[in-house]
This record gives sequence, structure tokens and C-alpha cells, in this order.
Amino acid sequence: MKGYTRVLLRVDLTTGKITKESIPEEYLKDYIGGSGLATRYLYDEIPSDADPLGPDNKICISVGPLNGGAYPTSGRFNLSCLSPLTGIWLDASSSGKLAYHLKKAGYDAIIMEGVSKEPVYLSIYNGEVELRDASKIWGMKIAPAMEAVFAQCGNNRASISMIGPAGEHLLPMANVMNNKRRTVGRGGAGAVMGSKKLKAIVVYGDRDFEVAEPEEWKAIIKESIKKLQAHPATGQGLPAYGTSVVLARQHESGDVPAKNWQIGDWDGYMKISGPAMAQTILVKHPNPCHACPIHCARHVEIKEGEYKMAGEGPEYETLASFGSMCLNDDLESIVAANVLCNEYGMDTISVGSAIAFAMEAYEKGIITAEDTEGIDLTWGNEKAILAMIEKIGNREGLGDVLGQGVRKAAQQLGKGAEEFSVHVKGMELPYHDPRAFFETGVTYATSPRGACHLHGHIGSWHAQPIPEGGLMAAIPPHETRGKGKMTKLVQDISTVVNSAVVCQFTNFALSVTHMGEALTAATGEPWDGKKVLEAGERIFNLQRAFNNRRGITSADDNLPGRVLASVKGGPVEGKIPDMGTMLNEYYIERGWETDGRPSRKKLQELGLDFVIGDLYQD
Amino acid sequence: MKGYTRVLLRVDLTTGKITKESIPEEYLKDYIGGSGLATRYLYDEIPSDADPLGPDNKICISVGPLNGGAYPTSGRFNLSCLSPLTGIWLDASSSGKLAYHLKKAGYDAIIMEGVSKEPVYLSIYNGEVELRDASKIWGMKIAPAMEAVFAQCGNNRASISMIGPAGEHLLPMANVMNNKRRTVGRGGAGAVMGSKKLKAIVVYGDRDFEVAEPEEWKAIIKESIKKLQAHPATGQGLPAYGTSVVLARQHESGDVPAKNWQIGDWDGYMKISGPAMAQTILVKHPNPCHACPIHCARHVEIKEGEYKMAGEGPEYETLASFGSMCLNDDLESIVAANVLCNEYGMDTISVGSAIAFAMEAYEKGIITAEDTEGIDLTWGNEKAILAMIEKIGNREGLGDVLGQGVRKAAQQLGKGAEEFSVHVKGMELPYHDPRAFFETGVTYATSPRGACHLHGHIGSWHAQPIPEGGLMAAIPPHETRGKGKMTKLVQDISTVVNSAVVCQFTNFALSVTHMGEALTAATGEPWDGKKVLEAGERIFNLQRAFNNRRGITSADDNLPGRVLASVKGGPVEGKIPDMGTMLNEYYIERGWETDGRPSRKKLQELGLDFVIGDLYQD
Repeated sequence: MKGYTRVLLRVDLTTGKITKESIPEEYLKDYIGGSGLATRYLYDEIPSDADPLGPDNKICISVGPLNGGAYPTSGRFNLSCLSPLTGIWLDASSSGKLAYHLKKAGYDAIIMEGVSKEPVYLSIYNGEVELRDASKIWGMKIAPAMEAVFAQCGNNRASISMIGPAGEHLLPMANVMNNKRRTVGRGGAGAVMGSKKLKAIVVYGDRDFEVAEPEEWKAIIKESIKKLQAHPATGQGLPAYGTSVVLARQHESGDVPAKNWQIGDWDGYMKISGPAMAQTILVKHPNPCHACPIHCARHVEIKEGEYKMAGEGPEYETLASFGSMCLNDDLESIVAANVLCNEYGMDTISVGSAIAFAMEAYEKGIITAEDTEGIDLTWGNEKAILAMIEKIGNREGLGDVLGQGVRKAAQQLGKGAEEFSVHVKGMELPYHDPRAFFETGVTYATSPRGACHLHGHIGSWHAQPIPEGGLMAAIPPHETRGKGKMTKLVQDISTVVNSAVVCQFTNFALSVTHMGEALTAATGEPWDGKKVLEAGERIFNLQRAFNNRRGITSADDNLPGRVLASVKGGPVEGKIPDMGTMLNEYYIERGWETDGRPSRKKLQELGLDFVIGDLYQD
Repeated sequence: MKGYTRVLLRVDLTTGKITKESIPEEYLKDYIGGSGLATRYLYDEIPSDADPLGPDNKICISVGPLNGGAYPTSGRFNLSCLSPLTGIWLDASSSGKLAYHLKKAGYDAIIMEGVSKEPVYLSIYNGEVELRDASKIWGMKIAPAMEAVFAQCGNNRASISMIGPAGEHLLPMANVMNNKRRTVGRGGAGAVMGSKKLKAIVVYGDRDFEVAEPEEWKAIIKESIKKLQAHPATGQGLPAYGTSVVLARQHESGDVPAKNWQIGDWDGYMKISGPAMAQTILVKHPNPCHACPIHCARHVEIKEGEYKMAGEGPEYETLASFGSMCLNDDLESIVAANVLCNEYGMDTISVGSAIAFAMEAYEKGIITAEDTEGIDLTWGNEKAILAMIEKIGNREGLGDVLGQGVRKAAQQLGKGAEEFSVHVKGMELPYHDPRAFFETGVTYATSPRGACHLHGHIGSWHAQPIPEGGLMAAIPPHETRGKGKMTKLVQDISTVVNSAVVCQFTNFALSVTHMGEALTAATGEPWDGKKVLEAGERIFNLQRAFNNRRGITSADDNLPGRVLASVKGGPVEGKIPDMGTMLNEYYIERGWETDGRPSRKKLQELGLDFVIGDLYQD
């Protein structure tokens, strides 16, 4: 059956050997594609004691059944590997052009393994695949390096994914940048590429895109666009204000952290919000992702002054990171910080968190002016933020300490710094406060890549049908009971979305039933909502098992002490999530042992019998 | 107030210094006495890195408000220390005469600390307390050594608690024996006495016994005896057949393990049951404990043959241990095994478990005839059982390996022996099968001293009133939901019973409301059922914190693989407890984090704020 003839490209960077493999049909049936497919391959292929920056780590880039055509938000791909920031599972997705071109070139996945002696980039042009010399662009920042590659290829319609100096320097906060504007964020995939001396991946494909049931496929695309446009979030809020729409609204619910998660009543929120951006620097020609009707990306222009620029505007997370977290209400400086991070190829959440952490350490005297080499890390000092970003990108001085992430930085600094290093499993928290929505705490504590808002963040997803029938009920933000069950469901859905691969924002308007119909039309395989959720659960548990093998237990499933103490001021002062009750309920729903391993029974139910011997030696 | 003027004796064995201290009134109000009082003292006094057999370990013997008079089953005392078998909290109780005499001598507790250079015994004669030379009895078995001490004291009405050769040899299965017939079992308290060179404790007291409200006290005693006599278990079954009554009934429900927890259809059960004993060796003058109307102890006589004896009969656990566990249906040899263990001063559950474990290893070729020095460890060989008990008691050859407990023995033997070493946290399982009653699994997994049937075993205790009102509902044995909640309640009740200090069998007939009335009459302090349960919960959580400090996490709260696989044959074949679901429910009820620590909130609620800094460093 056509839907299941899928090809994986395997690139051995040590030997330069490139092979094409058929993907086993059962992998596609059980794991969908994207994140799921990567999980199945890498669970087998990455040894449980591998060094994230050593030759045993592998990178899997993969797409799914919904990519390559006109399905809304289907311009996304998944990248997975062992994370150098957390030491556990990483998957991260990005839009850009890669998903489209990879599929049109005839591939569903690439596994890159080994280590190249010299810098190279991978070139895929339909059936022609080769490693090319990248020594001339090694060391260059993103924009000029991309231009140089396009000039060499003579094809600037191709997709390009690339690391900047941060990835080359093996910084655990290094991202992979895609066609300048889009990012594989969180967890340091850029450093893994850097460790392999792989500067970039260029893909161009123009083969036919085919689905199993073309008529149904067209109808489903039409219907899904209609639903996305009809929903207030994906039809109005996001198109009008981008992701920063939430900053205006969410700080009123206590969701937006300020001053390294300390205070809840900062008065600068409105100065850096989506509406503020719309009134100042926003240009009215957004850059939508491939096949996306939502258009949340922002194109901004600063016409004069030291931050003069035109290009990608900051997302919500970046606004919170270099804004409220550092008490900086200068919107233009946040745009500049975003540009800098993009040029070095760095994760804006982790970099901003590290700087906010450093500002608190500076205030407390744990970091001195001598350590900073004169940078005045007082709260709100935007010049200091920008200077420190450069230091992190270059791994210079204190920048090298902070660039390892707040977990390691706090260990290195000592003197009580661990009390305000805010991470889960080494991953800095994204900027949704678990004290505002208790369910966020469960998500952060149990997400497979550490604290994460893209593997099950709940937001307003109450339109989801649930297995028992009906829709998922909204539970008040400070209610405890029910949050474990809710989180499990939403994580399974998110996992499917990362495997399909489409955008998490589709969850506002499109149900798992709809997802089942779309997968059926694409593959010809009969999918329904139940099967979709089962696949999500299977993939999620396999990722968990990957992490259990790396030593993760229930003791790692928790929030940092800072967010288990009350925020000062603001609407949620005094609210502390009862993590024990929520997590234990979550474990029951998941069928996990109290030590955090999926039970033998659950593994059997999900067809993950091959995992049992790895997790249970007794 | 008279009820709260209580004295603790502190005996420093290193210096020989003996002091008397007033027990703080709040300790008695918050921790009752017995196990609770010991927990409060030892949490503070035993360093978290202490070696169980080193000078930093301490032994606390304590009684409670109900001891010293005629309250039914009040002849029990509690002994606590760090266990050399498990490395965590130990408390164990015993009847005998100590509780009565200690109280009548004017003390509620003794703490023994340090290490004596030469063997000594502690003599308490009302106000006169001294350490006496025990070099002449060091090395002697229990019966002759006790006779020698009584002869020296000239008072054979005194209480005497003593270790045998096993304790002197620091065997982690060594018990403390009380007036020959009664035992402080489980966890190796005898070895801790041995490590301190403390052979025995002799106590005689004849001072007045006083309670706060004498009239109420008398009425309560009358009422409680009536209730105990009216209940089928404490009024009929236990008086008629002793604890072995359950062997006849329980093997039909799959509760009695056979062949090291492998099979469920052994045909020897009825030959070693209580009714079989009643028809053969039982003598109709049982030896009741002090003030006990239940009379479960057995006096037996074997009139001829190699096992000829007259004395204490084996309890249920001993019958299962040297009977069904080893496939031995020779009742007289089990009596002989019991006598041998009592003479060496050893725990019959752990010794029998270790021998059954060795029999399986022998069958599998992991232990050879060379290892056993010719003892033929085939299943059911009663001569081999008796020979191996002697080897364990003397720590000779293979006996030294087995005597360390099955956890360490399996580690030492290797070759897959860990697959059938049946323990929780190093404590061999007592003989109630979690596959017959799923709730037993939760109790074993979470009991503060490792697998235990005396810190919350449920049995038939459905007469207990619950905080929400009404009685505790019976839940079918193979039901999963509700078992976490049930176990939490029963553990808190058991903890109170161990602190009062009375016999667990009273739970069949007497409620926590009754306990509140009894405590009020004894102390004058207003107690009720709610306050009683709160005290139980407080003590239980403090014991947990003690264990958390020793490194215990949720990963240690589980059952061994052997009892998570199906038993072969019998009424419960194919039944496997779903530990994850039950334990997570249990954690929710307890207010524990998923990593197994009591939450900060729970500790605060219980007035255990002083613990928070020890458990939460972040």
C-alpha cells in the first residue's frame, strides 16, 4: 500500500556512507511518524550510556503522514536526539521549509550518526544525497552562512537548517535555525550537530506528493481550515497579535513570570505585549509558515536607533524571557536580543532564564562585577542583557558558565544559587507559571524533555473529545483533583501532533477524531480517535522508558523550589500547586509505578514488550 | 498533671553513666508513648549516617499510657533502633514481663547508647539502676543464661530480655528474647544489643500504678474485655487454635506461601495447621500474656522421639516458615526449629525465608553440596532445615551468608539468585501473600521497617470507624481501587496500637474511639478517635522521614519480582496486584510526593516542621 512505502536516509558522518532504508510498516502504524518514528528508532539505536556530545548520539529528523502537502500547519518537522542540556530525550519541532522539501524529495526521515572529521553540510536534492565541505562557513553566524550556502547551491528555494557559532561551540542551549526565521528550540540540538561537525542540512524536493485517498484529503483540508478560522484563538487572537497575544491577557491570571519567578505585580507587562507591538514596530505583512492559515509569526521593523532592524519579531516566550524575567520593559531591546540569539543560534528561553538567574545571583552577591567583567547585571539593564547574550554565544567567561544551563551553573556557583535555579531535569522552565494554572506543574514535571510547554501544555484546549465520550471538561486553574487525568490526555494528544507533524495550535480547533480522519486519508490505514490516542500514549511511554534507562525516576518529576514557594504580589500570591496529589493521580492514569517506570502491564498493553527487560531487571 | 510526669532512663554503655530525664510533656501528647515516643527521640538522636552496628546507633525501649495495669493485652513494650538487616527504622514489640515491671519501676522508656568494653547486663530494680558484669553468661544460649541471671539476682519474678549467641555474633536476624517465651522479632535488634556488648536487661518494679481517672479506667477495662471476648476472632478462633488458626483457613484463600512463594497448591497445609496441633501436641494450659483475655499462645509437649520437648509452641508465621515455605509437613520438626531459633535468639520468619531461599538456590545449582558442607537442602528435608538453623545461629559457612538476610545473600551468590530473594527493603516477607489480598502488597511496600504484617496488616479489621463516619468498608481482596486509602487508615491505627502499647489483635474488636477513651482515662488528657488517628499519622510520617533521610524513596516501595509473578496452582493463580495504582492512591491519601517524601504541607499539618529542612534542601 502506497501510504506505507516510506524511506529513511541514514548518514554516517564518520565514514561518509549514505544509505536508504525502507521504514518498517509497523513503525508507521504504531508510531505515526515525526516524533513517534524518531522515538522508535532512537530507543533502539542510542546506547543508554551514550554521551550527548559523543559519537554514539544520533540525530533523527523526521516528518509524518500530514507533511508535504496543503494540510494546515503541516510545514513542521521533528528533530530528536539525546539532549546535552538535560542528558535525556529531546524532541523539538520547527516550521520552515524542511518538512515540505524532505517529503517531496521522497524521504520521511534522516538519521545522522557518527562524527565527521571536518565540517560538512548535508545536501539532499531529490535522490542525490551528499556531504559537502563546510569549512568555509564554519564559524559564521546564521544569516551570512545561509547566504553563502545558497550561493554555492544556486537554489535559494531550498530548505536550510543550520547551526550558528553556539552550536559549533557545543553550547547546550544551541538551536538549529531554519531558513533564518524558524527554530528547533530547547535542549541543545544545535550542539549535537556541532559535535558531529555538521553545519547544515539543505533539502530540495520537487517530486509528486501523494496521499492514499485524495478526495477525502481535500475535503479534510478544507474543513480543518474552516475550523481553525472559526476558533477565536486561531482565527482572531493569534492572527492579530501573534503568540504575544497571551502576554496581555495572561499576566492578569498570574501566568507570566517576572524577576526570575519571584514577583507577580511587575508594571512593565503592557509595554512589551502583543498590542504594544502592534501599535509600534509591527509591519503588516506577516510571514506565515507553510500551509498555515493562522499566521502567528510577526514581521517587525525598527526604523531608527541602535536596534534598527527589519525581520522576525519576538514570540511570547522571548518577550517574557528578555522582558519580564529580567524586568526589562524596553521592547526594542527585546527584539535586538531575539535577533542576536537567532544569529548565534541559541534558545531564547534558556538564554533569558540564565540571564535572569545571573541577575538574581548578582543582586545577592554570588556573582560579582569581577565575574561579569564589568557588565552591570542589575535588573532591567537591557545593555547588560545584550552583552551577556554575546558572552553566552561565544562561551566567554561567565557566559560559558551560564550557557551550560541554570542547573549546572548553580552547581558551579554554589553559595545557595541552587535555590533559585529554575528548571526541571535541567531544562529551564518556559514562561507559564504553574502557580497560575496548577496543571502546568504536572506538565512541566513529567514532560519527556524536561520543563516544556509543547508536550502537553493545556492552555484552552477544552474542545477535545475524551475517550469516555463528550468533551474534556474545564477544571478551574487552582483545582487539584482531575489535573493528573487531564494532563495525561493532553500529553497524549500533543505527542500525536508532534508525530503527525503539525502545529500544537491546531489543538484549539481540531480534535483527535479529526486527526484520525486526516491520517486515514493520508495513509489509507483506518485510524480513529481512539487509535490516535493509543499511539500518542505508546510514543509517550516509549520516551519515558528512554528516560528511565537514563536514570530518570519519580524523584525527577517535580518542580523547582522557587515555584513551590509563593510569588510575591499579583493575582496568584499564596497559591502553591499540590504536586504530590496531582502527580500521583497522573501516575495512576498513566499506569506508572510510584518510582516512575511504566508498569509491566502498561507496557504490554501498548505493545512495548521489548522495553520490559530494559526497565525491570528483577 | 500526674499523667504526664514520665521518666526516661539513659544508659551510656561507653561510660557506664546512667541518668534519669523527664520526658517532655509535648512528646507524650503528640506521640503517645511506645513506638511513637521512640520515634521522636531517635529521629533526633541517631545520626542519619549511623552504622546500625556502630556506636552511634541507639536502642530505645518504651512503654505507653496503657501499660503497667490491667488493660487487656497491655503486657507489651516497644523496642526501636536502626536495623542492621534493613539499614532503616526498626520497631518491634513483644510481650513478656518487661512492660509491666518497667512501668511499675517508674519508667516509661530506656535509651541505651554507646558501646560497652566488656559484656554487661542492665539491672533495674525500682530506683536502683546499674550495669553488671555479664562475661560469665556471654556465649550462652537463652535458657541457661536466663537461669544464671535469675540465680544471680535472686528474683525470678523479674522481667528479663536477652540476646542469644545470634545477637552476640551480630547476626542481622538476631532477636531479643523475653522470659524465654516471648520475642522482639524482625530486623535484628538482638545484633544491635550484641554490638553494644549488652547481653540482657532485667527489670523489677513494684511501685504503685496510677492512672488519671481510676473509675473510668476500670469501666474501660471491663468493657474492652467484654468486646474482645464477644468477637469471633479474639473470643473464639485465637483462644482455640492460637495464631495458627489462620493456617487452616487462609491457605484456602491463597494467603499462605509455599516453596518460597512459588506454588499455591501444596497438600501439606492441613498437617501443620492449628487444628492439627490441637489434636496432637497441644497441652491445655496455655501461657497467656500479661492481662490478656485472648490467650493465643500455645504450650505444646512432644512426649517422645528425637524432638521431645515441652514449652512454647510455634506461631502461625513459624509454621509457614519452616513448614509450607520449605515444603516440610512434619509438625514436630517445626516445633524443634522454633525451639532452636528461640535458643539462639533468632527471627523465625527471616531464618525460614533464608532456608527456603537456599533450598531453591540448591535446586537450581546456585548453591552446591560443597557450599552446604554436605547438608542436603532438598525441599521438605526437615533434618537439613534444623542443621541449617544451627549454622545460621553460629554464622558458620553458608549459614553466615544466609544469616545476612536474603537481600545480601542473593547479592553475594549472584547467578540470578536475586530473582527469588523475597524481601522489601531487605526485610523478608512475612507469610501473607499479596496475591491473595492485594492490600497486603501496599502494606508490605510501605511499612516503615520493610515488609511487615504488624504495621498495618488488614486481616479482618472492618470494624474500624473511619474519619468520614461509619465503619471501614470491606473491599474484595482482588479489588484495586480503595486499597491505598484503606492501608493508610489501618497503618495509622496500628501505629497508635504500637505506641499505646497493646496487641494488634485488639483491633479486631476495639476501635480508635475506644482507644481515645482509654488514653483519656490513663492520662487525663482529652483524647478522641480523631486525635488518636492524627497521632498515628504523625508518628508514621516521622518514621518515614527517618527512612527518607536514610535514602529511602518511592523506588524502594514495591514488592519483589517473585510475588509480582503468578503463583503456580491454587486459588489465586493468575492474580497479580497492580502496585502502581494502589501505591499512587496511597501516596495521595498520605500526602506524599511521588518520590516518597511526605510533602512539606503534610509535615506542617502534622506539626513536623522540624523535619522539613532535613528532607528538602532545595
